[in-house]
Amino acid sequence: MPVLQAEYLKSVSEQIFLRLGASEDESRVVSEHLVNSNLFGVDSHGVIRIMEYVKGIRESTIRLRVQPKTLKELGCTVMISGEFGFGQITGMRAMRIAIEKAKEFGAGIVGVRNCNHLGRIGEYPMIAAQSDMIGAAIAKGPAIVAPYGGKSRMLGANPISFAIPANKEKPILVDFSTCTAAEGKLRVRRAKGEKIPAGWIIDKDGRSSTDPSDFYKGGSILPFGEHKGYALSVMIEALGGLLTGAGSLTKIVGVNGALMLALNIESFSTISEFKSEVDELIRELRASPRAKENDEILVPGEVESREYDKRIRQGIPIDDPTWLEIAGIAADLKIDLKDPGAKAQGVRSVPAS
Amino acid sequence: MPVLQAEYLKSVSEQIFLRLGASEDESRVVSEHLVNSNLFGVDSHGVIRIMEYVKGIRESTIRLRVQPKTLKELGCTVMISGEFGFGQITGMRAMRIAIEKAKEFGAGIVGVRNCNHLGRIGEYPMIAAQSDMIGAAIAKGPAIVAPYGGKSRMLGANPISFAIPANKEKPILVDFSTCTAAEGKLRVRRAKGEKIPAGWIIDKDGRSSTDPSDFYKGGSILPFGEHKGYALSVMIEALGGLLTGAGSLTKIVGVNGALMLALNIESFSTISEFKSEVDELIRELRASPRAKENDEILVPGEVESREYDKRIRQGIPIDDPTWLEIAGIAADLKIDLKDPGAKAQGVRSVPAS
Repeated sequence: MPVLQAEYLKSVSEQIFLRLGASEDESRVVSEHLVNSNLFGVDSHGVIRIMEYVKGIRESTIRLRVQPKTLKELGCTVMISGEFGFGQITGMRAMRIAIEKAKEFGAGIVGVRNCNHLGRIGEYPMIAAQSDMIGAAIAKGPAIVAPYGGKSRMLGANPISFAIPANKEKPILVDFSTCTAAEGKLRVRRAKGEKIPAGWIIDKDGRSSTDPSDFYKGGSILPFGEHKGYALSVMIEALGGLLTGAGSLTKIVGVNGALMLALNIESFSTISEFKSEVDELIRELRASPRAKENDEILVPGEVESREYDKRIRQGIPIDDPTWLEIAGIAADLKIDLKDPGAKAQGVRSVPAS
Repeated sequence: MPVLQAEYLKSVSEQIFLRLGASEDESRVVSEHLVNSNLFGVDSHGVIRIMEYVKGIRESTIRLRVQPKTLKELGCTVMISGEFGFGQITGMRAMRIAIEKAKEFGAGIVGVRNCNHLGRIGEYPMIAAQSDMIGAAIAKGPAIVAPYGGKSRMLGANPISFAIPANKEKPILVDFSTCTAAEGKLRVRRAKGEKIPAGWIIDKDGRSSTDPSDFYKGGSILPFGEHKGYALSVMIEALGGLLTGAGSLTKIVGVNGALMLALNIESFSTISEFKSEVDELIRELRASPRAKENDEILVPGEVESREYDKRIRQGIPIDDPTWLEIAGIAADLKIDLKDPGAKAQGVRSVPAS
């Protein structure tokens, strides 16, 4: 399994998108987003997605060199269309608009439709946190989860994320799907021939299963936390899906619909006071008595940020099949994997559509 | 066990608060809120709370005839102090301000501190839904929940609620605490000498327990949905607690801190279109294939609204100890339980502080 440096992976990814006709900005933003997901340990939303994006570009479900469009605007709320460009471009734009609105109005809420894969949802609230604001995002995705008590794929994985800035500590980052396990985890377990814990999925007949391949034979993932996780998922169907016009349940236009929020801390408190208090909250939780002596109490986002620090130092392990596929695409596009940034001779870039 | 009509219970409750010196408005709003909780089947937040509110009034932790005060205002965001009046008065005011802001700015977000018990959190977003808006609320409460991996009471029950209006269907109502079980449920099981399911609580040493009395001997309730429910709870500590200035973890001023949101549907869609789509979402979920033939697929809020319809028709069962306590307070205050609204002779009402 190759272990690759983040900068190298970004460069390979950027070259792939550039040579398929994406703009420099698109190539950079999307590549940074993907590699960031790997850095945070969320490999299911990392460079493994390059293949699906390349396919999207070739089949024109991902449109290149388009700009998100504002459809509606009322005070602090804005509705935008991603125009079926890269989801990451749409998502970044949405959160940036929310932050601008929050500077003026105390809060900004932006709805998104006509949107391709947004990638790792936690990325967007973190932009707000970096601007000393509180960020939140929910996203409706393709139906792969059964309702509580049901046995069919009706709900999306429907992630929810919050980022809360701290002072000396890293921001609190809440970022999870409202189902038991991301589909990517099932894929990995299946590839390794491993079982999964009971309670993650049901087979096509609604029976509990520990065999990940049952999901791929028409089974469904279950909501996390029983009726409570289910309730959150339904809320996301209504707000991330219907309110934005992206659609709900099995009917969805594009890959994601989303709602993003930026909240101005100064509306309620002062930035310095709030951030110091968040530090204290984090430290008190961490220092509180442990159920098992050798366990740790972590705050949300800590697993990811530790992985980030480790992978920045040690590199990002990419499993062999994924790297083979990426290297194959790169070779097709005449990218020199020893020096991905080098100008290839005689390569005709695909014209923008 | 007496089974009492909602109107009768409201009248008894109103008279109790009136005779303790509360204003007509306070007495009515709080009594309606409590009885509504009983109607929705959430008895832990119903008239059982009268005793604690009476104690609060007598000990001046609940101040009568005070008005919530606006502390800060920026665009669509407002920070208010409940001035330690009834939490329900503060909560209603907060959501009404949020709705007004949402009419003007597309969204309204209101923070609340110096706040007594807000009661059932789901009540507030429903006001937004009744105004054809989307409502949401989170509240930080007293520490009774252990962090994921911990064994001490650090987090509040920290409920989260969303209400989404429908057209012909009842609104979707998401309303749950971010822990496995409300403390009220433990109290009921303990009173009946019943066990609780494993996974609800740990004892004071952090060991899993099925004996509800272990909670009252220094044990803690667990977060729902493992690390995901824990993450939501930490988010509520930061936003409902710190951002509002109510405080976090074991340090909290008053009983609750809260953040409420009203979202104008017209910022994104049209009210009629959205509400019809929510109807469809509800119906499709309900009609989707069931895991077990005899089970039902319910939408969030349906359990509560069915209980409401039933209790409106058949009355509200109040357990004997609760009714005895309420009747005792009423007798002390010379309230005629056969005709609670009747003017008592010679009763001096407590002057407002």
